[in-house]
Amino acid sequence: MFRNIKITIHYDGTSYHGWASQPGMPTVQGMVQEAIYKLTGQNAKVNGSSRTDAGVHGLGQVANFIIDCPIPTENFQNALNNLLPNDITIANVCEVSESFDAISDTVEKRYDYLINTNLIRPVLARNQWHRPGNLDVDKMAVAAELLVGKHDFKSFASAADQRESSVRTITLCTVEQDGDIIKISVTADGFLYNMVRNIVGTLVEIGRGRWQSEYIQDILDTKDRNAAGPIAPACGLCLMEIYYK
Amino acid sequence: MFRNIKITIHYDGTSYHGWASQPGMPTVQGMVQEAIYKLTGQNAKVNGSSRTDAGVHGLGQVANFIIDCPIPTENFQNALNNLLPNDITIANVCEVSESFDAISDTVEKRYDYLINTNLIRPVLARNQWHRPGNLDVDKMAVAAELLVGKHDFKSFASAADQRESSVRTITLCTVEQDGDIIKISVTADGFLYNMVRNIVGTLVEIGRGRWQSEYIQDILDTKDRNAAGPIAPACGLCLMEIYYK
Repeated sequence: MFRNIKITIHYDGTSYHGWASQPGMPTVQGMVQEAIYKLTGQNAKVNGSSRTDAGVHGLGQVANFIIDCPIPTENFQNALNNLLPNDITIANVCEVSESFDAISDTVEKRYDYLINTNLIRPVLARNQWHRPGNLDVDKMAVAAELLVGKHDFKSFASAADQRESSVRTITLCTVEQDGDIIKISVTADGFLYNMVRNIVGTLVEIGRGRWQSEYIQDILDTKDRNAAGPIAPACGLCLMEIYYK
Repeated sequence: MFRNIKITIHYDGTSYHGWASQPGMPTVQGMVQEAIYKLTGQNAKVNGSSRTDAGVHGLGQVANFIIDCPIPTENFQNALNNLLPNDITIANVCEVSESFDAISDTVEKRYDYLINTNLIRPVLARNQWHRPGNLDVDKMAVAAELLVGKHDFKSFASAADQRESSVRTITLCTVEQDGDIIKISVTADGFLYNMVRNIVGTLVEIGRGRWQSEYIQDILDTKDRNAAGPIAPACGLCLMEIYYK
C-alpha cells in the first residue's frame, strides 16, 4: 500500500550544489533519494519545501515522498541515516495523509543568517559569514522592522528570479547580537531568489554606516535590485523551519 | 637579524593527520610551515607546544619559529592567513625573546572535549562527539574531581606512550552540561598519549551507569590501561590554551 512519508532533514550545505538534484552534481535531494533507493529499491521523488542554494544549510527542511514498501515508517529514520553521509541527517519521519504536499502546503518559512564579526576567522563554524569588524546592530534592527509586512521585494530578488509576482509578506525580521555573532532571522510566506542574502547584504551596509536605516524604504520603493546592497555569501544562511497549517 | 616569533593557531583538525608534519600527509604544522615558506622563502621549523592527533582541533595552539626576513612582525598575521586554507588561522603573532621555546616553556595546557547527547546527529558542528542519550553529569563530575592532583595516569595512557614517567598533575577537571552539550575540561602540566580521550571514555562509562564515580580511583590504582573505559573519538577534542609563566 502506498504511504505518504513526511521527513525533516538537517544538512551542512558546504559540499552540495544545493537542495535540488542535478545530473552529475552532489545535491541534498539527490543524496536522500539515493538513500531511499538503497533502502527500498524504489525511485521515490523527494519533494522538498525549499530549494536551498549551493552552500546554504538546513536545520528544518521538510519533504515528502510516496512509497510502497514493507519497511515500517518508524524504522525509516535510522535506516536512512545509516545510508546518508555525516553532513545530512533525517531528524524526523512520520506518515501523513495522502493529500499532504511539502511544497504547496507550506504557509511560512524561517531562515536564519549568522554573521561572525570577530577579527579571527572561525575555523570550526561552518554556518557563519566571517565579516570582521563592528556593525551597528540597533540601526540594522530598525531597518529590518521596516521590511515587515506585505511589500514588493523586487529590489531584493536576484535577476535570475522569473516568478510573476515579487510581492511577499514578511511576518518577522529581527537582528540580534550575542557576543561576536549577529543573527538575522526572517520569516515570510515565501522568498524570492536570493532574497534573504540580499536583505542581509543590505542590512550590513546599514550596520557599517553607509546608509541610514530609513533608506531601506527607498530601496523597496525603487523596485530595482541595483538599489540594494551586495549579496551576502551562502555559507551564513540556514533554513530553520517550515510552517504548515 | 633573526627574530623569534610566537604564534597562536586555530584549526579544524578534521582534514589533517594531526599537528606534527609527516611526509606526504596534510598536517597543520606542514601547512603553517608551507605558508611561511611562501611568504619568506625560508624553511622555518614551527615548534608547536602540543602534538595534537589526527582529527583533534585547536583553538589555542602556540608555536614559535626563528626567522630572518624584512617583513615586519605586525604584517605576519594577515599575510600568513591569506596563504592558509580556511580551516587553519593564525589568531595572534608577536615577537618574543630569543630564549622562548613554545614546548619547553609550557607550564600547563587545557583541553576541552564536547559530547552532543541529542538524538539527532549534529550536521554543522565539527567539534562534537555525537553520543545520543542521557548521561549522569553529576556522577561524571564527582569522578572527574577524583582525577585532580598528582597521580600516575598510566591507566589512561594508550600503549603507544613510551615516555619514562606517567605521573602528571591535573589542576582542573570539570564536567558541565548546557542543554544537549556536555563539556569536559582538563588542565594539566602535561598529558600522556590519548590521555584526555581515555579520561572522557571512562567518564562516559560512569555517566551511563556502568561504574560508580569512586571506581575511577581503582582505575588509577591498577595502573593498567585495560581497567579504564574505551577511548573517545578524536573529533570531540580541542586544545584550548597553553599556559606560560
